[in-house]
This record gives sequence, C-alpha cells and structure tokens, in this order.
Amino acid sequence: MTNNSKKLVLAFSGGLDTTFCAVYLTKEKGYEVHALMVNTGGFSENEISKTREHALSLGISSFKAIDERENYYQSVIKYMIFGNVLRNNTYPLSVSAERTVQAIAVANYAKEIGASYIAHGSTGAGNDQVRFDVVLQIIAPQIKVITPIRDLKLSREQEIDFLKKNNVSMNFEKAAYSINKGIWGTSVGGKETLNSRHSLPEDAYPTQLTTKDPIEIELQFEKGELIGVNKQSFSKSVDAINALQAIAAPFAIGRDVHVGDTIIGIKGRVGFEAAAPLIIIKAHHLLEKHTLSKWQQFLKEQMSAYYGMWLHEGQYFEAAMRDIERFLESSQKFVSGKVFMRLLPYRFELIGIESEHDLMSEKFGSYGEMNNAWSGEDVKGFTKIYGNQMSLYFQVNKPEKNEN
Amino acid sequence: MTNNSKKLVLAFSGGLDTTFCAVYLTKEKGYEVHALMVNTGGFSENEISKTREHALSLGISSFKAIDERENYYQSVIKYMIFGNVLRNNTYPLSVSAERTVQAIAVANYAKEIGASYIAHGSTGAGNDQVRFDVVLQIIAPQIKVITPIRDLKLSREQEIDFLKKNNVSMNFEKAAYSINKGIWGTSVGGKETLNSRHSLPEDAYPTQLTTKDPIEIELQFEKGELIGVNKQSFSKSVDAINALQAIAAPFAIGRDVHVGDTIIGIKGRVGFEAAAPLIIIKAHHLLEKHTLSKWQQFLKEQMSAYYGMWLHEGQYFEAAMRDIERFLESSQKFVSGKVFMRLLPYRFELIGIESEHDLMSEKFGSYGEMNNAWSGEDVKGFTKIYGNQMSLYFQVNKPEKNEN
Amino acid sequence: MTNNSKKLVLAFSGGLDTTFCAVYLTKEKGYEVHALMVNTGGFSENEISKTREHALSLGISSFKAIDERENYYQSVIKYMIFGNVLRNNTYPLSVSAERTVQAIAVANYAKEIGASYIAHGSTGAGNDQVRFDVVLQIIAPQIKVITPIRDLKLSREQEIDFLKKNNVSMNFEKAAYSINKGIWGTSVGGKETLNSRHSLPEDAYPTQLTTKDPIEIELQFEKGELIGVNKQSFSKSVDAINALQAIAAPFAIGRDVHVGDTIIGIKGRVGFEAAAPLIIIKAHHLLEKHTLSKWQQFLKEQMSAYYGMWLHEGQYFEAAMRDIERFLESSQKFVSGKVFMRLLPYRFELIGIESEHDLMSEKFGSYGEMNNAWSGEDVKGFTKIYGNQMSLYFQVNKPEKNEN
Amino acid sequence: MTNNSKKLVLAFSGGLDTTFCAVYLTKEKGYEVHALMVNTGGFSENEISKTREHALSLGISSFKAIDERENYYQSVIKYMIFGNVLRNNTYPLSVSAERTVQAIAVANYAKEIGASYIAHGSTGAGNDQVRFDVVLQIIAPQIKVITPIRDLKLSREQEIDFLKKNNVSMNFEKAAYSINKGIWGTSVGGKETLNSRHSLPEDAYPTQLTTKDPIEIELQFEKGELIGVNKQSFSKSVDAINALQAIAAPFAIGRDVHVGDTIIGIKGRVGFEAAAPLIIIKAHHLLEKHTLSKWQQFLKEQMSAYYGMWLHEGQYFEAAMRDIERFLESSQKFVSGKVFMRLLPYRFELIGIESEHDLMSEKFGSYGEMNNAWSGEDVKGFTKIYGNQMSLYFQVNKPEKNEN
Repeated sequence: MTNNSKKLVLAFSGGLDTTFCAVYLTKEKGYEVHALMVNTGGFSENEISKTREHALSLGISSFKAIDERENYYQSVIKYMIFGNVLRNNTYPLSVSAERTVQAIAVANYAKEIGASYIAHGSTGAGNDQVRFDVVLQIIAPQIKVITPIRDLKLSREQEIDFLKKNNVSMNFEKAAYSINKGIWGTSVGGKETLNSRHSLPEDAYPTQLTTKDPIEIELQFEKGELIGVNKQSFSKSVDAINALQAIAAPFAIGRDVHVGDTIIGIKGRVGFEAAAPLIIIKAHHLLEKHTLSKWQQFLKEQMSAYYGMWLHEGQYFEAAMRDIERFLESSQKFVSGKVFMRLLPYRFELIGIESEHDLMSEKFGSYGEMNNAWSGEDVKGFTKIYGNQMSLYFQVNKPEKNEN
Repeated sequence: MTNNSKKLVLAFSGGLDTTFCAVYLTKEKGYEVHALMVNTGGFSENEISKTREHALSLGISSFKAIDERENYYQSVIKYMIFGNVLRNNTYPLSVSAERTVQAIAVANYAKEIGASYIAHGSTGAGNDQVRFDVVLQIIAPQIKVITPIRDLKLSREQEIDFLKKNNVSMNFEKAAYSINKGIWGTSVGGKETLNSRHSLPEDAYPTQLTTKDPIEIELQFEKGELIGVNKQSFSKSVDAINALQAIAAPFAIGRDVHVGDTIIGIKGRVGFEAAAPLIIIKAHHLLEKHTLSKWQQFLKEQMSAYYGMWLHEGQYFEAAMRDIERFLESSQKFVSGKVFMRLLPYRFELIGIESEHDLMSEKFGSYGEMNNAWSGEDVKGFTKIYGNQMSLYFQVNKPEKNEN
Repeated sequence: MTNNSKKLVLAFSGGLDTTFCAVYLTKEKGYEVHALMVNTGGFSENEISKTREHALSLGISSFKAIDERENYYQSVIKYMIFGNVLRNNTYPLSVSAERTVQAIAVANYAKEIGASYIAHGSTGAGNDQVRFDVVLQIIAPQIKVITPIRDLKLSREQEIDFLKKNNVSMNFEKAAYSINKGIWGTSVGGKETLNSRHSLPEDAYPTQLTTKDPIEIELQFEKGELIGVNKQSFSKSVDAINALQAIAAPFAIGRDVHVGDTIIGIKGRVGFEAAAPLIIIKAHHLLEKHTLSKWQQFLKEQMSAYYGMWLHEGQYFEAAMRDIERFLESSQKFVSGKVFMRLLPYRFELIGIESEHDLMSEKFGSYGEMNNAWSGEDVKGFTKIYGNQMSLYFQVNKPEKNEN
Repeated sequence: MTNNSKKLVLAFSGGLDTTFCAVYLTKEKGYEVHALMVNTGGFSENEISKTREHALSLGISSFKAIDERENYYQSVIKYMIFGNVLRNNTYPLSVSAERTVQAIAVANYAKEIGASYIAHGSTGAGNDQVRFDVVLQIIAPQIKVITPIRDLKLSREQEIDFLKKNNVSMNFEKAAYSINKGIWGTSVGGKETLNSRHSLPEDAYPTQLTTKDPIEIELQFEKGELIGVNKQSFSKSVDAINALQAIAAPFAIGRDVHVGDTIIGIKGRVGFEAAAPLIIIKAHHLLEKHTLSKWQQFLKEQMSAYYGMWLHEGQYFEAAMRDIERFLESSQKFVSGKVFMRLLPYRFELIGIESEHDLMSEKFGSYGEMNNAWSGEDVKGFTKIYGNQMSLYFQVNKPEKNEN
C-alpha cells in the first residue's frame, strides 16, 4: 500500500460541503478528484444530471453516479421490515442506514479505481462522520480518509467565501431546513428540532397534503417482503415501495419528530416524513401478529432493538448483525398474505388481513367461543399447573400485601 | 379450613352471566350468596346504584360495591405507564390487568367475611377464567372456586330460559358488541373481531367523535406519574387520568384493534378505545426520550415487554414482577416535566417537552453543531477505537461480500 | 382418522413401567402392542438384544429398536453445543432433550405402521409426561395417547403384583437410584436428590474414578462442531463424542447436581454425570471467546437461555426454536480451531486454543502493549465521547452521592 | 475553574509507574503532589506503611492511604454477588470494578483538598486508562487529568533510567508476572497470557496449594449477603469474605484464565485466583436456585450480563446501573439460608442448602412423586392448552420435517 498517487474518491452530493471539498481538494491540495454520487433513492434522473454538470464544472477529474437502491434494499431495508425497525418506536432510520450503504459504495469504488484517498464532507458534530469513518476503517483500512470540513472547522460562510473566490457559481442561499431524501424516508432538520419544545410547522415538510378523500389499499407480502400493491405485482420490492409511496405521500402520512441518542452521546431531534416505510412496517407487523407464535414476536422485538441500534450507530459490520439477519429471515417463513388498510389525511388505519398462514383461522375455533379441541376442565387443569410455582411461592414466603 | 358453611362470594357485574350465577347458586344450590361489585373505573354512581337494586331483587344475601380505582392505579396502572406498556405495541391492556385487581378484591372480601366459596361468571373459552382462577389459587387456596357457566357449558339461551323461569326481569337483548369499560380503556368485541379480515365500524365504538377543532394540551409528570393537566394539579393520578379522558374522548382518539395471543394459545382480536391511556403513554415515552440514557430506554423496553406479557397472562403474582417494578420505579427518578400535545379528530400529535432534566439542554451543545466539550479529533479517536473489533474481525476473517 | 383397529405403539425401555404397560395393554385391554425402543445413546447392542428377548416374552405383537443418535445430534445436540447450553449454568439437559427425540420417533413409527394408539409409561408426577404428550399432540393429533401408569395411579408394588400374576419374570428389585443414560449424559435421581440438603455419595454415580494420572487432550472444532479428538478425525460428531467420553469418563469428570424448575412448576433436583458434554461445551465456549465478537457472545447467551428453557420444557416445536437455530448456526461461521485441555481426577483445565480465526492474534498487537493501530491520544478522544452521555447526565441531574 | 494552583492528586500504588509519576510531576513539572493510596483489599497494614515511607522519600508534598473496602463492597461487590456476576462465565471482575472505586476515591479526595489536577499512571494500551478517565470526566469535569506514562509513551527502561538519575532507590527488577490484588480476587498477567495457546504454570499463582485434606464448610446468607462462615457471624460482609478467603485460599481454589473483550476492542487474556469470590458466587447461585422463581432467575441472568459488562467497561455511572441494582436488590428478599460445601485441592463441591424460603420444601410434594395438589388429569389439561399454539401452528403450516 505504498501507492503515492494523488487519486482520491470524493463522496459527492452537490451540496455546499461536498462542492467545497471538490474545489479545495483539487485546487488547493492537488488531488486527482473522482466524485462519486451514490443514489439511495434521494435523486431523480434530472437531479443526477444537473449534479453531474455542476461537478464537472468544478475542475475535478471525473464524476460517476451509481444506483445503490436495490443493494440498499437487499442488504438493509429488507431486514428493517422483517424486524419492524422503528428507532425509539418512531423513526424508520431513514438516514442512518443510508450512510453505511453509501460509505460501502464509496470504499468499493475507491478500491476499484485504485485510489489512495477517500474524502467526505462530514462535519465534526454529527453521526455521519462516525458512520462513514467506521465503514472505511473496516473495509478499506489501507485507504487514507480526508475530511476537510471537519479538519478545518469551517463555517458555512468560510466555505462560501472560498467558493466565490474560486468562481464557483451555485445557489448559496441557506435553506430553512436541512433535507435528506432517500427511498426509506426524508429527514427534515433545523430550527424547531434544535430544541425540545416545538414541533415542525406544517410547511417544513417537503410533501404537502394534496389528497383528502380516504381510500382503501391492499398490500401483498411474501415471506415478509412487499411484492404487491393494490393487485399489482412487483418483482422488485424497491418498485413496490416506490409505487406505495406515490399513493400514500399525498395524504401527508408518516410525519413525526424523532428524539434519539446520537452515537456521540448527546440527544438529537430530527423531523421526518416516511409514508411508505411507516405503512409497510405497520402492515407487516399486523401480518406477523396473525402468523407468528407469541415467542417469535417477543424475541424478534428484542433482536430488532439491537439491529436498529447498531444500524443507527454505524455498526453495520458488527458480526452479530449477520446472525440477527439469519434469525429474522427464518422468522419470515410464513409471513405471507394480504393486508388491507385505509389511508386518510395524516394517518392510516389497519383494517385486516388474509393469509393461509393465519393462526387465527376460524377452523380452530374463535377466541371466546368453546370448541372441541379442549374443554373447561382442561383449562382448569392448565391453570392449576400454570399457577403452581406462584402458589408455592406464596405458601412458602407469605409476602405481605403491601410488599408484594 | 373445614368450614362447612355455604357462605359464597360472587364476583358480580349485573350482566347476564353473573345474574344467572346469583339466581342459580342461591335457589338451585342453596348457597348464601354475597355479591361483590368491584369498580375499576367502569361504573358510574348511577350504574352501581341500579346494579345494587337488581342484585338485591335476585334473592341473594347481600350486595356490596367497592371502589378499587386507586388501588388499581397504585398496583398496576402506574407501572404500565412507567413501562409504556402497550401489548404488541398497540393495546394498553385495558381489560387484562383489571381482572387481576378484581380477583384480588374478591378474594380479600371472601376472607374478610369468612366465605367458603367464591364464584365467578367466566366461561371456559377465554382468558378471564385463567386470570381469576390463578389469583384465587394463589392468595386464597383454601377457598373453593365455583364457575357455573363454565361447568354447565351453558349457552346464552339456556341462561335466559332459566332466569325467565325464575321470574328475573332484566334486558335480555343481546348487544351487538360486548363492551368492557374501565379506567384504563374500554374493550369492544364481537362480529368483525371474530375474524381477521375487517375492522370495527365507526358506530361500534361507545364514544363517538363530537369535537372537531384541534386543541393544545399540556401534561405534567412528576417521577413518571401524571400530576397535572392543562395547569390543573391533581393529588391523585386517577383524577388526572379522568380529567384527561374527559378532554380527549370527544376527539375519538385511541381507537384500534388488538390482535394478540391469549393465555390458552389461540389468537384473539379485540377492539378498544382508550384516549387517555394512549395519550399518557406516548407523552410519557417522549419525556423519557429526553430524560433517560440510551441504555435505560433500551432495558426498560425489554423489562416492560415481560411485564406486559405477564400482566396480560394473569401472572401478576410472579415474583419477578415485583423486581421489574423496582427497576421501573428507579428509572423514573428524573422523568419529570411538561409535555405539550395537540389533539385532533381521531389522532394526536406530540409537540415537545420542557424539563429541567432534559438531557438535550442547549447548555451542552446542540446536535449537529460543534461545541467546546469535544473536538473533531476526539471523534476521530473515538471512531478508531469504536470500530476496532469490527476491523480486526475483517482482517482476520476477510468475510466475502455476499456472505457478510 | 376413524381407524378402529387396536394397533398401538408402545414406547418401550424394558423397565418396570413399560413392561407393565406391555402386558396390561395386551392382556387386559386387548391392544395389538408394537413395542418401539428408541436408542438415543443409552443402550449397547447387548442391552438392546436382551430387551428384545424380554419384550417378546411378554406376548406383544412386535418389537423394534431404532438408533436415533445421529438424528438426536443433528436436531438437538448440535445446537446445544453452539449455544453452550447448560441449564441453570450446570446441567447439559441430558434427559430433557432426549425425551422429545424419542417422542418424535414414536409418533413417526406409529404413523408409519398405521397405529391408532400410542402408549408411554410416564407417571403423573414429572416432566416426561408433558414432553411426550406435547410432541404427540402436535405431530400426531389424530392418534390417541394412553398412559396406564398415570391413569391408574399405580404404585410400584401394584405393578409388580400384576406382573407376577401374569407370570412375568424380571428383576423386580428396586435400584437405589434411578439412572437414565444417553449420549449427552446420564442422570442419577433418588434419595439425596429428593431433598435440598445433601449431594449424591460417590458410589451413586455409575461411572467410578479409575484413572488418576492427568493427561492432555486436543479437540478440533469446525464451524462449532467437534470433528477431531487427539489428532483423530471423525466424519460423524456422534463418534467424536463417544471417543471423547471413553477417554474422559474414567476421570469421573462432569458430575454435579442440578436444581431446576420443572415444567409443572415445582423445583426438582437431579444428579448427573456427563464427562464429554461438559468438556465439549467448555472447550467450545473457550474457542468462541477467541473467535466471536463481544456482542455475538452476549446475544448468543440470551438466545441460548431461551433455547435451553424451551428444550427442557418440551417446547421443541415452538417456531422460535427454528429461528434461534438459524441465529446460532450463523454465529459458528468462524468457530473453527483446536482447543487444548488437561484432564485430571474429577475435573479438567482449559489450556488454550489455536485458530486462524483467533481475534487475539499477535498480528494486531497484544493487550496491554502499545501498537501502531491507535495511540493514547485516540483512546483519550474515545473516552471523551464514550463518557459523554454519563457526563451530561451528571451535569443535568447532579445525583447525590448516596442516591446516585 | 480558574484555580491556578499546582495542587495535584496522584493515584499512587508504589509501583514503578506511579513512582515515576511522583518524581516526574514533582521535580520536572513543579506540581505540588499529594499521593493517595486507595486500598480496595490489596494491601496489608505493613505494605501500606512501607509504601508511605517510599512515597515520602520521593519528595512529594503528602501521602495518604484510605481504606475503601467497605465502600467497594457496598457499592459494587454486593451487586456482583446478587447478580452472580462472572464475566464470560469465568471472571469475577476482580480488577475491573476496583479501578472505578479507586477513581471515585481519587476524585473525591482531589475535590476535598481543592486540587486542580489528578494524575494516574495508566499506559495507553489497556482498560484502566478508560476506567479512570471516564469516572474523572463525569464526577470531576473541572479537574485536569494528567497521565505521564501514556503521554510520554515511556518504556519501562526509560522510567528506570529517569528514577535512577533522580536517586530513587527501589526494586527495579521486573517480576515475571504482573500481579494485582484486591478483596475480590488477584489477577495474574504476563508471558502465557499474551498469547492464546498456553495457560499459566502452577508457580505463576501467588497462592500455592498448602492444604490437601478436604473439609466441609457452611456459608450463611441473609437477603443475598454473606453474613456467616462456619457458624461465625459477621456484621460486615467484608470480614466474612476475608474469613472465607483465609479458609479457602490454601486449597488453591478459584484459579482460571479469563479471555475477554477489552473496552478498546481487542481480546485480552488474564489469569486470576479468587477463592472466596468464586465460592461465594456459586453458593449464592445455588441458594437462588432453591428460593427464586424460574423467571426471576432468567431475568436476573440477563440483567447481570449488562451489569457485568458495564462494570468491566468502566460504565459504573451509566444510569441504568442504578435501575439494575434496584432490580437485583428486590430479587434478594428471600435469598436467605445456609449453603453447605466441600473444599478440596483446586476445587470445591456444592453439597446442599437449608432455607425456610426453599421452594423445594417437602411440604409441597417431591418432584417425581404424586401429591394432593394436582392430579394426572390436571397435567393432561395443562399439556393440552400448553401445546395449543404449537399445535395450531402445525395444522396451519404443516412444516416439513427437514425444514422444521
């Protein structure tokens, strides 16, 4: 690894920070900068095309955009659905998981083109620097990482000054909120989210309410994966997610504010909108309530709590993650069927399910009605044995009422 | 315990089943029947008064109504709030916990008046028989339990016939849904809930939407307990819950259908409305996100999953429940402050919190902004050590991309 | 399932209880009795041959012995090793798991020969009746189960009387201890184990100390499975286990008394000797300490606690068991290498390991010695971020010393 | 925090590293050095006296020795016993917990005398630097921490050279093993423990086998705490621990090698001898098996795994630790009684227990024998309901043999 070349891969989004990096690393530091834009669902063809133009105008050596959506789905989103992962019972980890997938793509591209350096635009204040650096350290330990914004402790104004001096023309106006879009949701940060007291105003959300008449929809799952929306089948779940998003987003569904623990130990708040992710997770969860055993559900919840925590914290490569994925996969064997829902402005309702693996099938008797499989006498015997240890405990210890 | 008296305590609600038991046990079996009505929040003064009249008209020896709401709160509801307990992430255990509290009250009353028998109106098909019998077996093992409906396998029609023959006059019409009301929510079962496909229609819910204009409310918590609603303080949380319920119920908030695993192993579905419980739990949870450490939240969730499961399954007297209660109590030391919310038709939004124990206090820097407590260099060092084991693992094992 | 035949499969061991069942069911009840002896490692060829002779002398229709050792290993023992399963940190579940494997074999045989009944010799007082009945109810619900000893509440004396009257000749003397032998250990119950105060005397254990000179041994594991003992390779782990048992048993290793919670809620005590199982589990665990990540070890322990509990309680067919098996399997990917041990009278010592997957490899620096991968400055940065939340918590809450 | 004084508290053990710090900080750096020796059980009166003499000969300003044994017991050891904490099922955390207690004492002393600096002798390669720094950062954030050995990256030889130049006379010979002694065990590191292959030789252990004749002992516990050894009562558990250690140490009991994950992510190995700790934990655990419910034991094990992990990793001040302590405390309510054991060379055997809280009491029937509390019919009913969900699952899903 004594490559003395100045070849460098820059994780590039086209925003202020990565534009600064592109110019600074090329012009001030003399690197051969190869910009890589990793699409995890946040960019349209048109946006990518504009970003390419912008990138190439900065004097860098090359620009490439790669579509990592299917890979993102197969390696992360799928398991978040299996695990019904909502961080702190709220947040579908829209951004957290994306960063890891982007870092892996960047590392692989750098190896592929034989780069000696990787640069990213993270500051020294957030989770993303950790997510990026951890991945790079693990899978590309021989490549040196450069983070100009963090290292130079640059302010927004300093970056703009520098770019203006270098004749870069772009929109330097600061958006009211910082928006991060991907296939698994869009995060919205700024103003209100910097403190604890207020929630985001209606107009902070990129997607506004445009449909008010309730509709019913039908989602089809096969072994835990979404494969159909309203009778239409999809061979790729990514397409099913996008189709659902197109239907649900106009209802302004899936908005909330997440309050969480960052990797660096402080609390952070972030708004988000994630119509399809929220609907899919709740629909999937309902289907599981009908098709999984009590203990499968119980253990899945524990395993998923770890999975979500580590994903959030950039620990995708923790070996236990692979073991949990096998666990989750196994649990989905019979999670197949249809889920029926109603979409309304700002919310949705779960209606019911149909599945040949439904353990609530009438064939075996309905709850609250007697059937032939067991008798009241059986339940009496059950209860006697079931309460045996608690009963012995009381006979032995006679705990006083107030104590116990 | 060779009391040969015929003194019997009957858990009495005034419905068809317990009315049958009262008449049958008195007239056919010659017991001295003492009816006990345990109010866990489901009965108004007026309803209790009418039930007393009805009960005494049946020829039983005595009728007593006791108010167990404060006790229910202190021994169970409080901990369900501490633990944010929602069974299967949905159901506030409205009925489950109530039954145990009722059974304990019945057992204590039977001991107090020296009864030799306890009777309850459970059938052989549900959870309640187990919840009742387990408690009685544990804290009153010397008292014999009688369950006429279960033992005689009676149908509704047979019960009505018997009562008509015995000149009992009451409303024998079958309600479309079976309703069970208590301070921690009202369950609604029947028709649609007997199968998996449909949800309850609007009019199945006892409380209808009557307020449409959104309002903002403020809840005050002290060490995890609700002590204030909209600037009004309460010395008893039960009163605070009722006050909140009066405000929130007209918004038709807190409706849903729970799909769960019964104690006897089959799946069951039940609708419910629980405005105050849902609002309190979500508000409390938000306050915890600001005031607890990451690991407190993580462990609380695991402990609460057990707590909710055992409560649901009638295992209130499991010794580990007391240990979990101490754990939960300890975690609430700093869960004090105000939570701000918005109530709207069918839903509510969390706005924010104010707490002197808020770990997100601006004093310590905001997420995403640099501060003086640590530097980008510190985070680099952190990340290097943080990723150390994953990095070694990769160097040693070189897991292939697809495998790992 | 309206087979009116009297064809019955009897789980047969040749002991007093199953001998009684064979004669009683044939002669008194007129069943066509087919005895099945399921070998899970407890019987030698000679013992099987004698049991066959004895069985056929009782007038039954057929006798068959099947070897389920490999199946037992593949479906249960393997996962107990992966999970280092020791119930209550002591007992390798020698008997518990065996019963389930035997019950499955009996059910399959009954289906195969078209029997309408299955009989087993369980009493009404232990775990085994539950283990047997649960399996039969699940995989052969159409076959009726008969348990004469339990149903007739027979005493030992009554069984002997009956057999003598029916001219059965066998050794009717009661052994001082009840012994149950299998590939995964031998249980020893009776006398001292009926109470809490005393342990088993030396001579209660079937295997006595006959070798006193310490020896060193070497175990080879491949993906968590034992495949070699002292340079000898085995294609079947069952053979490796037997080979190790032959070496270790003369040291009287692996004796202990297990105190546990039975399925029916009371506490039970049982002695056991299990040289090979204990040695394998401890060797395997050591290899894992070197080759697994911290969190893999942590989660495995939790998953294994469930696995062991359910296995013990006859819940082998709980669906979550399959999910845990996938988790455990996945965790074994790199658990390969050699473990070195010393065997001494009554105990053994772990010496060390050799593995190409050893995460402690010198290549990456030794603990306590500085290396090039990170610096003291890195650790300082790490510590600052690592302690961040605790530090904030203290600044916000200033918990008093005693309260903390 | 603008104290410009040069007052410094040095955590002092009298070894090479802290002797270097004392001289270096006083003579080269001009600090006013106040040495504090925190005794957590590792030093005799005589050793303290010699260390005082040595310290004062170095030209520092003051020397103080404080006895933190009772505090160590009350704040940490007690909970490790309640939780049966053995890291990786092996190591009683002899050193890990001690460091935190020492760091707290140092911080409190520094505050008490108004010091502006704290120094400790940690290198940059181990766990101890993190344990020390984390505690200091949390409870004394205003005091600056100085770590000369880590910061100067000094080798042993460099330290010796410096001390010789400064005319310090002490034994500069390097011990074959690095020994760390405390009330909860003695660690032994070096040579063999630097690699994976070999265990420590007999003579590496400070305590040698000197008693060979087996003896029986009796330990008395009260609510989980050791209060008596062989009929002698102790008002302080620390004294009971010491008394037991005096009896057990000559048997060379409690030796092993721990392989674990360090805070900084690499694997580490350390030998230890800890006769009393191992005996107490195993005795306590046995008593719990008799007196706790199944689920108390299950949950305690999970909670204790976290407790041990965080203690090991210097996270004593994690808020969840306090919650776990309340959980553990609550679980000990009835863990009272006597445990009988046999001590032999290198090992011990558990014999049995006596406790009025023993749930195995004969009064309630013995395992395996029928009694009056329930019948075989009850167990049949129990089993039917118990297996209900698994049975439905099979009817619905008919999983194939090999899959399930």
